[in-house]
Amino acid sequence: MNAAIVGASGYAGGELLRLLLKHPDVTVQTIVSETYAGQPVRAAFPGMRQAAGKSFVSYGDGSEVADNDVIFLAQENGKAMQTVPGLLEKGKKVVDLSADYRLKSAEDFEYWYKIPHASPGLLETAVYGLPELKADSIRRASLIANPGCYPTASILGLAPLLQHRLIDTNTLLIDAKSGVSGAGRSKYSAEYHYPERNDSFGAYKIAGTHRHTPEIEQALSGIAEQQIRLTFTPHLVPMSRGIMATCYAVLADTKSTQELQELYRDFYKDAPFIGLPESLPETKHVSGSNACHIGIAVDNRTNRVTVLSVIDNLIKGAAGQAIQNMNLMCGFEETAGLEDGGMWP
Amino acid sequence: MNAAIVGASGYAGGELLRLLLKHPDVTVQTIVSETYAGQPVRAAFPGMRQAAGKSFVSYGDGSEVADNDVIFLAQENGKAMQTVPGLLEKGKKVVDLSADYRLKSAEDFEYWYKIPHASPGLLETAVYGLPELKADSIRRASLIANPGCYPTASILGLAPLLQHRLIDTNTLLIDAKSGVSGAGRSKYSAEYHYPERNDSFGAYKIAGTHRHTPEIEQALSGIAEQQIRLTFTPHLVPMSRGIMATCYAVLADTKSTQELQELYRDFYKDAPFIGLPESLPETKHVSGSNACHIGIAVDNRTNRVTVLSVIDNLIKGAAGQAIQNMNLMCGFEETAGLEDGGMWP
Amino acid sequence: MNAAIVGASGYAGGELLRLLLKHPDVTVQTIVSETYAGQPVRAAFPGMRQAAGKSFVSYGDGSEVADNDVIFLAQENGKAMQTVPGLLEKGKKVVDLSADYRLKSAEDFEYWYKIPHASPGLLETAVYGLPELKADSIRRASLIANPGCYPTASILGLAPLLQHRLIDTNTLLIDAKSGVSGAGRSKYSAEYHYPERNDSFGAYKIAGTHRHTPEIEQALSGIAEQQIRLTFTPHLVPMSRGIMATCYAVLADTKSTQELQELYRDFYKDAPFIGLPESLPETKHVSGSNACHIGIAVDNRTNRVTVLSVIDNLIKGAAGQAIQNMNLMCGFEETAGLEDGGMWP
Amino acid sequence: MNAAIVGASGYAGGELLRLLLKHPDVTVQTIVSETYAGQPVRAAFPGMRQAAGKSFVSYGDGSEVADNDVIFLAQENGKAMQTVPGLLEKGKKVVDLSADYRLKSAEDFEYWYKIPHASPGLLETAVYGLPELKADSIRRASLIANPGCYPTASILGLAPLLQHRLIDTNTLLIDAKSGVSGAGRSKYSAEYHYPERNDSFGAYKIAGTHRHTPEIEQALSGIAEQQIRLTFTPHLVPMSRGIMATCYAVLADTKSTQELQELYRDFYKDAPFIGLPESLPETKHVSGSNACHIGIAVDNRTNRVTVLSVIDNLIKGAAGQAIQNMNLMCGFEETAGLEDGGMWP
Repeated sequence: MNAAIVGASGYAGGELLRLLLKHPDVTVQTIVSETYAGQPVRAAFPGMRQAAGKSFVSYGDGSEVADNDVIFLAQENGKAMQTVPGLLEKGKKVVDLSADYRLKSAEDFEYWYKIPHASPGLLETAVYGLPELKADSIRRASLIANPGCYPTASILGLAPLLQHRLIDTNTLLIDAKSGVSGAGRSKYSAEYHYPERNDSFGAYKIAGTHRHTPEIEQALSGIAEQQIRLTFTPHLVPMSRGIMATCYAVLADTKSTQELQELYRDFYKDAPFIGLPESLPETKHVSGSNACHIGIAVDNRTNRVTVLSVIDNLIKGAAGQAIQNMNLMCGFEETAGLEDGGMWP
Repeated sequence: MNAAIVGASGYAGGELLRLLLKHPDVTVQTIVSETYAGQPVRAAFPGMRQAAGKSFVSYGDGSEVADNDVIFLAQENGKAMQTVPGLLEKGKKVVDLSADYRLKSAEDFEYWYKIPHASPGLLETAVYGLPELKADSIRRASLIANPGCYPTASILGLAPLLQHRLIDTNTLLIDAKSGVSGAGRSKYSAEYHYPERNDSFGAYKIAGTHRHTPEIEQALSGIAEQQIRLTFTPHLVPMSRGIMATCYAVLADTKSTQELQELYRDFYKDAPFIGLPESLPETKHVSGSNACHIGIAVDNRTNRVTVLSVIDNLIKGAAGQAIQNMNLMCGFEETAGLEDGGMWP
Repeated sequence: MNAAIVGASGYAGGELLRLLLKHPDVTVQTIVSETYAGQPVRAAFPGMRQAAGKSFVSYGDGSEVADNDVIFLAQENGKAMQTVPGLLEKGKKVVDLSADYRLKSAEDFEYWYKIPHASPGLLETAVYGLPELKADSIRRASLIANPGCYPTASILGLAPLLQHRLIDTNTLLIDAKSGVSGAGRSKYSAEYHYPERNDSFGAYKIAGTHRHTPEIEQALSGIAEQQIRLTFTPHLVPMSRGIMATCYAVLADTKSTQELQELYRDFYKDAPFIGLPESLPETKHVSGSNACHIGIAVDNRTNRVTVLSVIDNLIKGAAGQAIQNMNLMCGFEETAGLEDGGMWP
Repeated sequence: MNAAIVGASGYAGGELLRLLLKHPDVTVQTIVSETYAGQPVRAAFPGMRQAAGKSFVSYGDGSEVADNDVIFLAQENGKAMQTVPGLLEKGKKVVDLSADYRLKSAEDFEYWYKIPHASPGLLETAVYGLPELKADSIRRASLIANPGCYPTASILGLAPLLQHRLIDTNTLLIDAKSGVSGAGRSKYSAEYHYPERNDSFGAYKIAGTHRHTPEIEQALSGIAEQQIRLTFTPHLVPMSRGIMATCYAVLADTKSTQELQELYRDFYKDAPFIGLPESLPETKHVSGSNACHIGIAVDNRTNRVTVLSVIDNLIKGAAGQAIQNMNLMCGFEETAGLEDGGMWP
C-alpha cells in the first residue's frame, strides 16, 4: 500500500514520515513540502537517516499525490478542504490532520477558524478519528478528521466518566499544558523565541477562546448524549513535546479512586495504547510513543475527581493517531508501526 | 536594626540573605547554616559577591541568633516551633518561613505534618503574614507565619472574589504549577535529577493530599467567612523558579471580565506588589521580584471565572514576603529592599 | 539468538533493552537489575510499552545470565571484570559497556579507576569496539570493550586526520560537551539537581584528569602509530542527551576544508553510521540514533583544523554501539536494529 | 547626572535600564526604542516594576537624547557611527555597545561588518572599554567602544598570560559557549525557535568566521605587543544567559597551576569584578552580576594551560561593563550600581 504525506516538513508531517517509514504494510511514495520541494529529506530532518535517498516534491497539480492509496494531509487549516473532495472522488482514503473536518457544523468552523468552509457537504461524511471510541466508524471511513492534540488527551481522559454518567457535567473543567512543538515548526515569534520561552510558564487563549474548545465539547457531548459546555485553559510549558490535560469534575455519586480505576481499566481493556499506571503519569512517560497514560484520583473532601491524561502531542496527538486510524481503515493491525515506546531519558 | 537568618544556605535562606544585604534599614549580623558552618557565604552561593567577607555560623546555643532584633527562620518544618518561644520571650521579632505556625489548629498541624506541635500555645499569637490582606495585624505582630508559596499565589488570586462574595465557593478549584526550586535545595532524588525532570511535566500529591491544601482553605475560609473546601493540584514544571496558580470558580452572578478587572484594581489599589497587566501573566514576568501578577477572564459560556496568579516562589512565595512582613512589623517602608524587578530574559 | 542485559535499569541498560527488543535477530531473555529485581520493566521505564510482560531479575548465581548466547554488561566499573572470565570460558560472547577492558594496561586501569584489575589476562583479548575502525577484529572477538562516550565522538572525529598523518599531533586538543545523562541515572547530587543544573554551563575534570583521557590517547596513538598526549576538557550542558567533541589540531601541511571533507568522505565511505553533513552538526541531529555526524573546517589564518563530532551519548556512545559490535561479532547486518534516526524536535 | 539609552528595548538595552535605575549617581532621562515608542516600559519588560511611569520615546531628531550628560547606544551595528560624531561635538560622553568603534581599522570594520564606516576618524579616539586593562584611558575618554561579550570573557581570561609572556601565542585557542540571549531579542528564526534549540548543542561560524575573532585578536595583540592569530569557535548552549570561554595555550616554560593562580590573583588584585574561585567556575555563578570568574589549570602531561572564563553575556558582556566604563569616565565609584550578585538558583 502506497502513501503520500502532504505538509511533510512540519513537526507532525515529519513524525508521519518517520513512523510510516518503519510501518510494515505501507510504502511512503510521495513526500510533499512546498518549503523543501526538490531537497532531500535530511534538509528538513537532519537526523532522519532512514529517509536517505528520499526527497520532498511540490504538490503541483496533485497527480503524484493522487497516485497513492492513502493520503495524509498535515497542512495548515483551510488547505485540506480544497483537495479532499477530489481525492475522495478518486476513491482514496484520506486522513486529515488539520482542523478542516473536525467540527460537524460549517458555521462553527467558520466562526472559530475565520474561513468559510469549502466542502461543507463532507463534514458529515468525515469520521472523527479517535480509535479508542470510534473504531467501527473508522474502519468503514474514507475520510478521517484526525483529532487535535488537546482534544485527544482530554477526551480520552474523560470518556469513561461521561459514558457512565458519573459526573455533573456542569462542573467539567480542563486545565491543559503543552510543550512548545504544539505551536508548529515555522511560527517564529517572541512567544517561542528560546530566551523568552525558556524557564517561563504561562497560559494563552483562556476562558474558552482556544479553537480546541468546541472540538472537545462536540466530542464529549456526543459521548454524554447531552450538550456540554466546559472551561478549557491551555498553557505553554518550557519543553519540546508532551501534553498533560488535568481534568476535573464533581462526581454525581460518591465513588472511590479504586472504583474509578477499575472502571477505566474495564473501559479501555481492548485499547492497546491506553496505559493506566499505578503512579502518576508524566509527559516523559509517553514521549516518543503513541500511548496515552491516564491517572485518576478522587478527592473525598470535595467529591471531585481529578483525571490526569498525558500524550505525546506529535504522536498520539497527531501523527501516531493518524497512522492508528489508517491501520483501522485499511484493515491492518491497530498497532502496526506504532509498537515502540519512547527513549528514556 | 540587626537581623539573623537561620537556615541561610537553602534556596529561601539564600534569597533572604541576598535581599537583606541591600535592605536600607537592616544589617545582617548572623547567618546560620549547619551544613556550611565556618565556611564563607560563597561556598554555598558562588555568585553572591555582595556577601564577600561574611561566613556561616552554627546555631550553637542560640545566643548569637538571639543577639539580633529580628530573626528569620528558614528551616525545615518542625524546627522553628522549638526555638520560637524562647525568642519571643526575649522580645524578638520572628518571621518563620516554615509551616510551623501557619495552621491555627495543632491537631491539623500534626495530621498534615506528622509532628506533634511543640508550642501550640503560639498558634493563635502567630499572624499569617499575607501583607496585602493583613497589614494591620502584621504591624502589631511579633511572630509571623510566612505563607507557603502555593498559598500566596492562590490566596492573592482569589481574595477579591471571596471577599465580595462573587463566586459559588463549592466550585473553587486551584490548578497550580511550580518550578523545581520549590522542592528545596538538598532533596536530591530521581524526581529532581536533571535528565528525568528536563523536558517533562507532571503532577504530584493530587486530590487534596498536598500540605498546602489546608493552609489555602484556612485563609480563604477566613476571607469568605465560611468553611471552604477546594481541590488543589500541584504540578512540577521544568524550570527553576516561578509558580502559576490557575484558579477557577463559577460566578454567583454574571460579571464581565472588565467588571472583575476593575474590582481587582480597586481591591489592590494600595498593594504595591500586585500587578494587574492587560496581557496574560507569565512566571518570567515576576521572576526575581516580589511582585504577584494577576490575570482574570470570564468564560461567558460557562459563567466561570479563570484567575491566573504568578509569583516567584522564592521571593513573594518565601524570602521577599518575609521581608515585606518585617518591613510592616518594624515600621519600615513596605517596599524597602524589595523595589527591584527581575532580569529579562 | 538469546541475549542477557546486566545492569538493565540504568540509562545505557535501558537503551540496550529498548533497541534489542526491536532487533530482528535477537531475543532478550534475561534482564538483570538488582535495584528493580522482581519488578516489571515499566517500574524503571514507564514508557517502554514494548516490554510489557517482561520483568527484571537478580543476577543471583549468574546461571540465568549464562544461559544466553550474548551477554551485555552495563554495570558500574569494576563489576564486569569479576564475571567475564567465567562467561568466556562457557563460550559466550560478551559486550562490556563499562571501562573494565578498555585500557590495555592493568597498571593504567588501576591508576585511573582506583581498582586493581581482577582479570588482567583478558586485557589483550578484549577488542576495543569501535566498528568504523576495527570491524575485522570485532568480527573475530568474543569480548568487546565498548568504548566510552567521549572517546567514541573524539576518535571518530580525528581518525582520518591521524591515519593520514595530516596533523601535528602535539597540537591536538579536544573540547567536549555532554548532556547530563552521561552522569548516569542514580548519581543524585547537587551537580545534577535540576535547579542547579538548569540554565548553567560548566566544565569538570579539566586538564587531563578525566578518565576518558587515557582511553582516547590509547586509541589515537594506535591509529597514529606514535605516542599521543592531548588535552581533553569535558563540559556539562543543560540538556539530557548528546555529546559534541570539538577537536582542534594544526595541519602538518596546508589543506582546504574541501580537501579534508573529501578525505573524510572517502575514509568513511563504508561506514553506515557516519554522516558528513554540509551544514554544521548539532547534537539534536543524532539524538535517538546510532549516527555520528562530523563537520570539518580549516581556519586558513592559523592553519588549524576544527572537527565537530556529535553523537547520542547513550546510543552511539553506549548501547547502540554495543549492538553494532554484537552485529559484527554474530555475523548479523551491521545496521540491524539500528536503522532508526531520532525524532524531531 | 542624566543618561539616555538608545535601543532600550533589546536585551542589552533592558539590562542598561534595569541597572541604571538603581545607580546612585545617574538619572535615566531618555529611553529610546523605535519599536516601543510611546509605550510604557512594561510593554517591553513586563517585570520591570521599578520603571513604573516611564515610557519609551522615538529617537526623532535626537535632541531629547542630546539633552543628557551620558548616552548609551545599544543599537544594531552601523547605527552609532551615524550619531556619535554629533554627540561628541556637543561634549557628551558616549558608551557605544555596538561594534562600530571596536576595531581600530576602518578597512577591517568594513571587511567584517559589510558596512563602510561613517566616521572612521573617531576609531582612534574611541577607547576599547575593558576597565580591568584600560582604566586610565577610560577615565580620560569621551567615547567608549564597549567590548563584545565573547571578547570580554576571552581577553580577561588570557590577559595575565599574555602580559607576562607565559605562552606560545601560536598555540592560542578559544572554544566559547554562549546562552541564546546573545543572539538578541528580535532575530526570530529556526535557530532560536524553542523546540529546535531546546536540548541541543551546536557550533556556528567556526574556523575564524565569527566577527569577534578580529576584536579578540586586536586586543590580545595589544597586550602581547605582537601580532596574534588564533582560532575562535563559538557554540550555542540551551540556556538563556551566560558565556564560558575555554581558552588553551601551551606554556612557554613549565608553570604549576598554583603559580598561575597566584599570578592571576596578583594581576587582578585591584579588579573588583574578577573572581578567582577555588572550584571550577560555572556560568550560573555569574548570572545576574557584573563579575567575571576565572579558573586556571595546567595539564603537566602536555604543558598546556586551560583557562575557564565565565561572564553574564548581558551584564559584564554588555550593559554592566558599559556602566562600569561610565563610572570610570564620570569619576564615580567603579562598582557603583553594580554591586549585586545574581540570584541562586
